[in-house]
Amino acid sequence: MQNAFYAQSGGVTAVINATASGLLATARQYPSRIGKVYAGRNGILGGLHDDLIDTSLLSDQDVTALKYTPGGAFGSCRHQLKSFEQDAASYEKLISTFKKHDIGYFFYNGGGDSQDTAHKISVASRNMGYPVICIGIPKTIDNDLPFTDCCPGFGSVAKYVGVSIREAAYDVASMAASSTKVFILEVMGRHAGWIAAASGLASEKTNDAPHLILFPEIKFQEKRFLEKVEQTVNQLGYCAIVVSEGVKNMNGEFLSEAGGRDAFGHAQLGGVAPRLAEMLQNKLKLKVHNAVADYLQRSARHIASQVDLDQAFTLGQKAVEFALAGIDGVMLTIQRESNTPYRWTIGHVSLENVANQERFMPRDFISEDGFHITDACREYLLPLIQGEAYPPYENGLPKYLPLIQK
Amino acid sequence: MQNAFYAQSGGVTAVINATASGLLATARQYPSRIGKVYAGRNGILGGLHDDLIDTSLLSDQDVTALKYTPGGAFGSCRHQLKSFEQDAASYEKLISTFKKHDIGYFFYNGGGDSQDTAHKISVASRNMGYPVICIGIPKTIDNDLPFTDCCPGFGSVAKYVGVSIREAAYDVASMAASSTKVFILEVMGRHAGWIAAASGLASEKTNDAPHLILFPEIKFQEKRFLEKVEQTVNQLGYCAIVVSEGVKNMNGEFLSEAGGRDAFGHAQLGGVAPRLAEMLQNKLKLKVHNAVADYLQRSARHIASQVDLDQAFTLGQKAVEFALAGIDGVMLTIQRESNTPYRWTIGHVSLENVANQERFMPRDFISEDGFHITDACREYLLPLIQGEAYPPYENGLPKYLPLIQK
Repeated sequence: MQNAFYAQSGGVTAVINATASGLLATARQYPSRIGKVYAGRNGILGGLHDDLIDTSLLSDQDVTALKYTPGGAFGSCRHQLKSFEQDAASYEKLISTFKKHDIGYFFYNGGGDSQDTAHKISVASRNMGYPVICIGIPKTIDNDLPFTDCCPGFGSVAKYVGVSIREAAYDVASMAASSTKVFILEVMGRHAGWIAAASGLASEKTNDAPHLILFPEIKFQEKRFLEKVEQTVNQLGYCAIVVSEGVKNMNGEFLSEAGGRDAFGHAQLGGVAPRLAEMLQNKLKLKVHNAVADYLQRSARHIASQVDLDQAFTLGQKAVEFALAGIDGVMLTIQRESNTPYRWTIGHVSLENVANQERFMPRDFISEDGFHITDACREYLLPLIQGEAYPPYENGLPKYLPLIQK
Repeated sequence: MQNAFYAQSGGVTAVINATASGLLATARQYPSRIGKVYAGRNGILGGLHDDLIDTSLLSDQDVTALKYTPGGAFGSCRHQLKSFEQDAASYEKLISTFKKHDIGYFFYNGGGDSQDTAHKISVASRNMGYPVICIGIPKTIDNDLPFTDCCPGFGSVAKYVGVSIREAAYDVASMAASSTKVFILEVMGRHAGWIAAASGLASEKTNDAPHLILFPEIKFQEKRFLEKVEQTVNQLGYCAIVVSEGVKNMNGEFLSEAGGRDAFGHAQLGGVAPRLAEMLQNKLKLKVHNAVADYLQRSARHIASQVDLDQAFTLGQKAVEFALAGIDGVMLTIQRESNTPYRWTIGHVSLENVANQERFMPRDFISEDGFHITDACREYLLPLIQGEAYPPYENGLPKYLPLIQK
């Protein structure tokens, strides 16, 4: 009987701890097969520095509370391992930690970069004569992993964005006769427009907000944008816009860069909404407000999607069950069985196939004019935001488990 | 038997329609005393242009749905009447509308500027020989009206801000070891720091976020701010900051102005968080993220405070009851009877005394170092965010009444 190592990776979500909850709760059901589950303090860094959190010290109540707690309870990180050839020392450190704590199972909970890391570790562990069972568990608000119907964390952001643009549009519509005419909400999505697309679900009837959605997949054309906004304001009296942080101009450059790059070398974005607001104010002489949701959108556990939560939790359960069944070197996937009602099962795909692929919005999910979503997109997205998974409250605020990694 | 005129004014809130709901539902209970209730399309502009919405056309179900719908259902506006001497024509238009529709009751639902307008109309209607009963109903997310314990709309923003900073702080804390170290949330509050203060409720234990709050009442000192952030990051590994849009420097100038002025001549603010983020990145070399909540905060009906909703609804009820009792020329107030449990009643104060006063945070509600709230402030604020008044959902999104003014 061996122990397990679980690590959270990359940007955290409203439901990544639900995956941890499912995984820990399930491992506890097999005391004769899995010993302790250790969590990496701050993700894989904990493995590299032999800094592990013994989750057996968490009460069952704590494990349940994880399901209601946003952020990454054990700490996450942005740290991509180089290839074994480039950085053998890191792999040696990690395997040394595995050996020291008798780790036989490695669960890595993250996005595309993390699945790549999981794959490298899987290969290295075999090559180094200390094979561990490696299972990647998908997680990313960007919803850009291949092979899986969707990515845990996305459904909750999608719901947050849909709720928020609907509410803000009520606000601006109320005031437009004498005040703000245009509202712009900036959402995350560096390369893929899934989050921006989800805002389109709020537009159920003709003329419902959002009226324009700007996707990273569609190059920004200022003239067409200004025409569309002007036309909407003339027709409805106001205009609500959702813009993805990753929108690029005709030269393929980000419309706005906040400067700086993250640990993966990605440009750190932000500030596209203020830039568009300025453009509209200058060119169309309209009063414009803008909001930048930033971390609020991916931590909004208070309005998490029940479907998203269920999938995140189930993936944690299945990770343990699959590992115990000897399934190795895979990323778990969500398989859509039917749309109405939405039915899904958990499958898996070889990590080798997943690494460093991004799934963009298909062109037929974006309307012909490039400014909205199609019915096909709506059909895909709608099941993912169903149900309100409210957390418990105390003193008027959500009662979350304190961060464990501190 | 005369008719009534109800108008929404100024920035809308998550619960101003709950006041409308209470008012309409109550008026319907007195069919022998109040005829129709007309709502001004886009607030007082509807009165000036004889553009009224006959609310008798709303079903009882619609009136109930108002309670769950953010924004201003009949349209609001930013339009302050000049004095009678400066603009007699507007008063004549308004009184002409009142006469034409046999209006005997005028309910004006707004903030400080609107109470001033209500007062002017009250005086003018008497001087012009067509006296109407005038009742101002408080509403402002800024919570800056005098004489009332709090202002409807504020409690829900307060809750939203408390929830949001707690959630975002979980996010940044999870990632701080290798990524973003500082998170800044910009909230509304042009002159008074009540909304920023409410974020302090999320800080229940030592070291809980937010770690710094920047109030308009406390002049911004860059050196002290940088020291405090650095100290917090050194101690905790991260720092969560809430900043009021109205923060001013030592010269009394807004730290950031988005440019432009609204119809009342107030500077239109926005963008203090990005400015502070830039400052921290340059001076402390820290990775910083920032969010600007803008309209999301005041339209967040999905996480409205139950106490706020109850007060907003009750004020609508009482406005009708007081008017029928012949009470005239007053703004309704919320009177705090006890803290634990929080008990309140509805009172009133002469409009004359209310007009154009702003209630700032008392100094003893702000900690000595100027960066947080005190226990006295906490005791005042805590009752206002109690209870989660969730709206109904359909297809994964809140089901709101369509805007009526369109």
